[in-house]
Amino acid sequence: MALSATAENELAGPSAMDRLLTATQAEMNKVNALILARADSHVDMVPELARYLIEAGGKRLRPMLTVAAALLFGKSNGAHVNFAAAVEFMHNATLLHDDVVDESDLRRGRPAARIIWGNQASVLVGDFLLGQAFMMMVETRDVEALGVLAKAAATMAEGEVFQLAKTRDLSTTASEYDQVIHAKTATLFEAAAEVGAMVGGADAAGREALRTYGVELGNAFQLVDDVLDYRGESGTLGKNTGDDLREGKMTLPIILALADATPAERSLIEGALGNVEVPDETVARVVSILEKYDTLNRTVEKAHAHARAAREALRALPSSEMRTLLGDVAEFSVARAF
Amino acid sequence: MALSATAENELAGPSAMDRLLTATQAEMNKVNALILARADSHVDMVPELARYLIEAGGKRLRPMLTVAAALLFGKSNGAHVNFAAAVEFMHNATLLHDDVVDESDLRRGRPAARIIWGNQASVLVGDFLLGQAFMMMVETRDVEALGVLAKAAATMAEGEVFQLAKTRDLSTTASEYDQVIHAKTATLFEAAAEVGAMVGGADAAGREALRTYGVELGNAFQLVDDVLDYRGESGTLGKNTGDDLREGKMTLPIILALADATPAERSLIEGALGNVEVPDETVARVVSILEKYDTLNRTVEKAHAHARAAREALRALPSSEMRTLLGDVAEFSVARAF
Repeated sequence: MALSATAENELAGPSAMDRLLTATQAEMNKVNALILARADSHVDMVPELARYLIEAGGKRLRPMLTVAAALLFGKSNGAHVNFAAAVEFMHNATLLHDDVVDESDLRRGRPAARIIWGNQASVLVGDFLLGQAFMMMVETRDVEALGVLAKAAATMAEGEVFQLAKTRDLSTTASEYDQVIHAKTATLFEAAAEVGAMVGGADAAGREALRTYGVELGNAFQLVDDVLDYRGESGTLGKNTGDDLREGKMTLPIILALADATPAERSLIEGALGNVEVPDETVARVVSILEKYDTLNRTVEKAHAHARAAREALRALPSSEMRTLLGDVAEFSVARAF
Repeated sequence: MALSATAENELAGPSAMDRLLTATQAEMNKVNALILARADSHVDMVPELARYLIEAGGKRLRPMLTVAAALLFGKSNGAHVNFAAAVEFMHNATLLHDDVVDESDLRRGRPAARIIWGNQASVLVGDFLLGQAFMMMVETRDVEALGVLAKAAATMAEGEVFQLAKTRDLSTTASEYDQVIHAKTATLFEAAAEVGAMVGGADAAGREALRTYGVELGNAFQLVDDVLDYRGESGTLGKNTGDDLREGKMTLPIILALADATPAERSLIEGALGNVEVPDETVARVVSILEKYDTLNRTVEKAHAHARAAREALRALPSSEMRTLLGDVAEFSVARAF
């Protein structure tokens, strides 16, 4: 099984993610320098807020995908640095806006920017980062790769609106959930990997392989996030356990549970969904319903299937160290669910 | 004087704005069709909200500038339609986000979108429109013109953050106010006119003439808006008289008045700034202070100076009907203050 293979890798040495970090480090140093430079502004509040969020870090997985894809094909003229930084800016703009939309208090284990600088500044600095992202892309003069990320920006926003429209909607189907996570999360992974391949000099088949890898990895990643929201120790994700429940988000563990739940269980879930005041005790009762119908494990299984599809997509390419590493990263992204 | 010249024009026939509408109508029909098509989405809430805002209309002055500039030089391959629609989308995205930031209730004389669909959807649909704007620009493959608008997007957001940082700051200077309105408003007028010239086939001097025209017109436009906020009958702007005061915005009429005010007057203004509960009676008392120091007229005079500079910039170009018309539009933009 995929999981045990990953577990063996873990025993044998550094995790796939650590190996990807090492393999992309030299290029990521350039990306990180560009990120800091372009978060600057003569309006003090802009770099203060932007750097607070950016320096909290996170894994920088998305820009790392762009860099790794470019290195895999090996013919980038340097445009991958701009595109990787742009991808991270787009991601951070989304985080700022999402935290306003979700009224989140925590992000990456610290108070959300909106708690410190307010919703207003979070919306506007998000807009600034989006503008800067497009400027960095314009500098490459690669209008085709820019188009991939412009389309991603629109699709991500559409996905967020769709999720918002489905808030507390108990009739939400698994297929609608698939659409939401594809649009809001997988689209940026997809675009990040695809533009990396493009500026790296991939042919059509190579570009398609990385595009598929990205979208499958992104789907796996979001499914695991949605599991960890219920299963994680508070703090693993840098946010609170049960946040999705309190925000009324119809994620797969809930959708699957509702399909099998007794009327009493359904009623308990319904009362908790979208109620920001729900006590931890009620969250625990909802989790016990999810456990009863095994929906967290079933969601992880689905993440596994996407991770396998991500690795599979890379088979179209000649074997290489980077190809193996990206395949391992896909498995690793699911292993963090345990 | 410029004003009386405009007044004479008014007596002689349709206003400059109406003549610009007529001169650009055929191309604006294409722009409007593209705007409606690209506001569409399979996520119902997106077109519902976007069309509610877009169909409320407004003058579409910004995209009209792009079209007029392109027609002035006459060699566009059709890219001006995409850029004009993109400019309008960027403007509407800004309106959606601004209404969230300012907690506005009215926009274009109707309840703001955030009142009907909520702040969350307003933020996200704004992001969607921004993404769509960039997609329309990518289709032209004109990366240089796209770069002008990408830079504008970042600058506009910076200007809004600067304005936010200066909220209720009584030490705000007239020069800081100039920076704010240049960034938040004039930048999009500037970019709209400049990209129109670029896709219209202007040489460097022509591009510079339209860029200057745009930025000066934009400055005049915002100065007049800031006068009308205190002087307008409620409804002229489609928002409430005194909104800027209640939102704590440090606009030029207030900044100039504070410089001359007695301690009692200063204290009255200070107490009203940023107080959403301020009754109309207090707004009227603040307006009487503005009248006492003639700061509304002084602000209009400044708008006149910008409008003259806008017309002046066009002198670098060969004389033509469109050149005259754009010059008249600059004067007209100030005449609406009366």
